[in-house]
Amino acid sequence: MPIDPQAETVLVALKNVPAFAHGLVRDLRVRWALEEIDRSYRTEIYEAMTPRPDGYREAWQPFGQVPALEADGVRLFESGAILLHLGEQDERLLPREPQARGDAYSWLIAALNTVEPAVMDLQWVDVFRAREGWTKEARPGFVDFLRVRLTHLEEAMEPDTWLAGTFSIADILMVTVLREIRHTDILDDYPKLKAYKERGEVRPAFIQALADQAADLGAPIKLGEPA
Amino acid sequence: MPIDPQAETVLVALKNVPAFAHGLVRDLRVRWALEEIDRSYRTEIYEAMTPRPDGYREAWQPFGQVPALEADGVRLFESGAILLHLGEQDERLLPREPQARGDAYSWLIAALNTVEPAVMDLQWVDVFRAREGWTKEARPGFVDFLRVRLTHLEEAMEPDTWLAGTFSIADILMVTVLREIRHTDILDDYPKLKAYKERGEVRPAFIQALADQAADLGAPIKLGEPA
Repeated sequence: MPIDPQAETVLVALKNVPAFAHGLVRDLRVRWALEEIDRSYRTEIYEAMTPRPDGYREAWQPFGQVPALEADGVRLFESGAILLHLGEQDERLLPREPQARGDAYSWLIAALNTVEPAVMDLQWVDVFRAREGWTKEARPGFVDFLRVRLTHLEEAMEPDTWLAGTFSIADILMVTVLREIRHTDILDDYPKLKAYKERGEVRPAFIQALADQAADLGAPIKLGEPA
Repeated sequence: MPIDPQAETVLVALKNVPAFAHGLVRDLRVRWALEEIDRSYRTEIYEAMTPRPDGYREAWQPFGQVPALEADGVRLFESGAILLHLGEQDERLLPREPQARGDAYSWLIAALNTVEPAVMDLQWVDVFRAREGWTKEARPGFVDFLRVRLTHLEEAMEPDTWLAGTFSIADILMVTVLREIRHTDILDDYPKLKAYKERGEVRPAFIQALADQAADLGAPIKLGEPA
């Protein structure tokens, strides 16, 4: 239970997030990593649906997003960057053997720059722009593009292991990215990916991180029940 | 001139790329980093417009993309991951002071996961899906979204310096991402970003990397002339 109001490590997160995003906001990735290494942190919580206060972008996050982290006297933003920082400090998050470390880097960036953009486009047409006229016509192409990515990922996925051989920050990224299409049944067509995501979601660190995020954003989520 | 047919470091890149993408294919980022540290490499070149050969995805890149790199006995894919690997080895690419290193991580990931997805969506409607009916209606919303990102980036950008204080892999990423909207005049509205991009493009390592990429893909680009 690394949440500790006296902790020196500060995680910036949100409350009053719309229901669609419960359990998806990207501070979950940082909480999960901190739980995996049992590192205490406290949260600084902002309102999701109003602009961040003056000074937020200068102090924490130039784009007004979450998460941001203060740890070890360093401020970082972007979940991937924060995980790299934490991974450098603890091999439970980032393996030290050179090829495994390279694999962790490769898959971490693949999650952020090859898979997640395709996922975000589907969220764009299904959620954020759903009321605009063009989304119905655009959606099949977006789904097809995402399916190409998922097919390649499925084919590359080894059963019963993690992307870099051992569990790493790459898995925190890829599992949380795969969760972002939970409003569809697309993942049902990719059994290895579905099993992989579920193996991530039953890790005690994930379950605790999800519960702590839910508590902070005011949305009760039952332990062990994917949000 | 780090290209050396005998080099142990192998970069996977493309030839016969469509004109739109000349000077944009992401192996440029790796070439630029290798030039900055004067590290020799040789290239392994594939046809852009035909599927990669059997075994390519298993050997080099699970999604069939470029770049991929073999260096120091390690294979990596995704330009961001390759830059992280190279940055670990040379502080000219990744500063060692903790906050500067954290800044480099934060901005590298911001380029890949916050700025580039918005850029890619504009390329999607302007280039890759331009003939589909929905793109005309979708485009203004995509431009607006990108402009929010660019406005925030402009406001965060310090004149006459680099994102992490000294030049780093974050700048290689952000400069090459900003180049991806060169088919529009959008960047004219962001003078600090435009100047920043141009400061990247006049670095000798960038100029050499661009020339070497052009030579490999069979598209002559004059030295010092942004492609």
